[in-house]
Amino acid sequence: MSVNLRVVTLFTVVLCLLGFSAFSEKIVIAHRGASGYVNEHTLAAYAMAYGMGADYIEQDLGMTRDGVLICMHDRTLERTSNVAEVFPDRKRENGKYYPEDFTLAEIKSLRAVESVPMRFPRALRLFQMVTFEEAIQLIQGLNTSTGRDVGIYPELKDAGSYEKAGLPFLQTFLDVLSRYGYEGPDAKVYVQCFSSGILKQLREEYQCTLPLIQLMSSDMVEKADMKEVAAYAQGIGPDKKAIDKDPTVVARAHEAGLKVHPYTFRADAYSSKYKNVNEEMELFLFTYDIDGGFTDHPDVMRQVIDAGKK
Amino acid sequence: MSVNLRVVTLFTVVLCLLGFSAFSEKIVIAHRGASGYVNEHTLAAYAMAYGMGADYIEQDLGMTRDGVLICMHDRTLERTSNVAEVFPDRKRENGKYYPEDFTLAEIKSLRAVESVPMRFPRALRLFQMVTFEEAIQLIQGLNTSTGRDVGIYPELKDAGSYEKAGLPFLQTFLDVLSRYGYEGPDAKVYVQCFSSGILKQLREEYQCTLPLIQLMSSDMVEKADMKEVAAYAQGIGPDKKAIDKDPTVVARAHEAGLKVHPYTFRADAYSSKYKNVNEEMELFLFTYDIDGGFTDHPDVMRQVIDAGKK
Repeated sequence: MSVNLRVVTLFTVVLCLLGFSAFSEKIVIAHRGASGYVNEHTLAAYAMAYGMGADYIEQDLGMTRDGVLICMHDRTLERTSNVAEVFPDRKRENGKYYPEDFTLAEIKSLRAVESVPMRFPRALRLFQMVTFEEAIQLIQGLNTSTGRDVGIYPELKDAGSYEKAGLPFLQTFLDVLSRYGYEGPDAKVYVQCFSSGILKQLREEYQCTLPLIQLMSSDMVEKADMKEVAAYAQGIGPDKKAIDKDPTVVARAHEAGLKVHPYTFRADAYSSKYKNVNEEMELFLFTYDIDGGFTDHPDVMRQVIDAGKK
Repeated sequence: MSVNLRVVTLFTVVLCLLGFSAFSEKIVIAHRGASGYVNEHTLAAYAMAYGMGADYIEQDLGMTRDGVLICMHDRTLERTSNVAEVFPDRKRENGKYYPEDFTLAEIKSLRAVESVPMRFPRALRLFQMVTFEEAIQLIQGLNTSTGRDVGIYPELKDAGSYEKAGLPFLQTFLDVLSRYGYEGPDAKVYVQCFSSGILKQLREEYQCTLPLIQLMSSDMVEKADMKEVAAYAQGIGPDKKAIDKDPTVVARAHEAGLKVHPYTFRADAYSSKYKNVNEEMELFLFTYDIDGGFTDHPDVMRQVIDAGKK
């Protein structure tokens, strides 16, 4: 290692340590909004999550035919909207409804539908789907009115698929972020993706300097070289099962300078080895030392973190 | 079980019940939703208030030309919507836009507009106006998903005026409540009105047995015969200034069997005699002994009440 490189490395380590201590607060990431209580990816779900004390609110992204980013988790529309009732003849041969086959105006004519039993009543049709910009406007608007600084946590789940369909998904994404002031490594945003290819493309091709999170299935965690990940990302978003199996994952990631934000903590779906999700969250946050987590029930994680501070 | 143990157990149970009822009597009433943070009377405002731990969420009511109850505070639409931009030629001679001059479909084509400076950004146009039924569906839906039992607190501010305009305001109101299960003295609803005439009409003409709240301006509080009010109402909603001036109002109301829910506590507008709204709320709740209060900032009152329990 050359002297120059050593100095740079030392400098980086010091910066990381400073950064770590300055931002070591454990964060509540509202998974699709307060999705445990109300339709995922609606303004109501985001507003409720905000009211429950989330630090970051997640948006999964899809794209309409006219190139507008919209908030939806799946690659297709039928699980979380009434698209099959409104546009029965617009399904593809596989029976599914793709957002890029619809204009934004058509998407806005749909209603959100709850898909998880025992949560918000499925029969209710109270909410429209929302655009990425509307989600940002809501959260930034609430930051103005509350004086808080809640961040966004967008996922580029199917970016590659939309790009292949000829839509400018990544450029539009970065343009929207830039327009709303999310630029540089200190922006109040984490950009998450399972594809290391997409993340590296953002860094290299698009010169994106925003904080990036490498999502990882359990298999990916086992094989991961954390130093290699740290070359392009600021953190990992592992399946929590991988940490349950091998809690040293967290220390390995921390040693490489990576934050650890596992998914997904749910009050109505947790391993039978725990008494309840609170116990599971406590273990992960304060014994396994994760830096935050995705949860459908942000009020519960807020309570667990706040109780842990006392 | 010995007689002594039985007595002790009974005594403990009674104490617990008394304690429980003392706690449960202090309620957070979200004034127009979490209106301190986001456009009043929108689904986002109600969802946020719910997430912040409100016990009751308030709806002020107006009526469309086609007889649908909608959530809005003022007698006219121009303060809280973009009606003047969308329907410039529909104002009356006094320059105002009346909801009964519009169909529900027209109302739904409007966007909510924030009217209070320094709160949610006025330029944003994220939300539709909502019907009374939609507000109830949201709150009851969240009661299902959370397991909580949050109530509604509708105000019949201008019922008389709509009735005079030939609209069946009161009957529609009671029909909606009945359809959603709000019936009888234990229903999770308080019906509030400044007009004793309307409240008495509900009791006598409509045989309504729901909990009623007599709203009172400061002038009305000074003149009030609490026993006379208790003959038709379960509580009073006085201007908090009247209690600040004469805190014995609360004891007088309690002696007559009336609950006391003063309006309106605001984090960004409180008397200069208080350090902040928390201090004001504490004094009213725990020294003046009010049973709950209307607030634009339900998170703050939730914190004050919860801290007072410890």
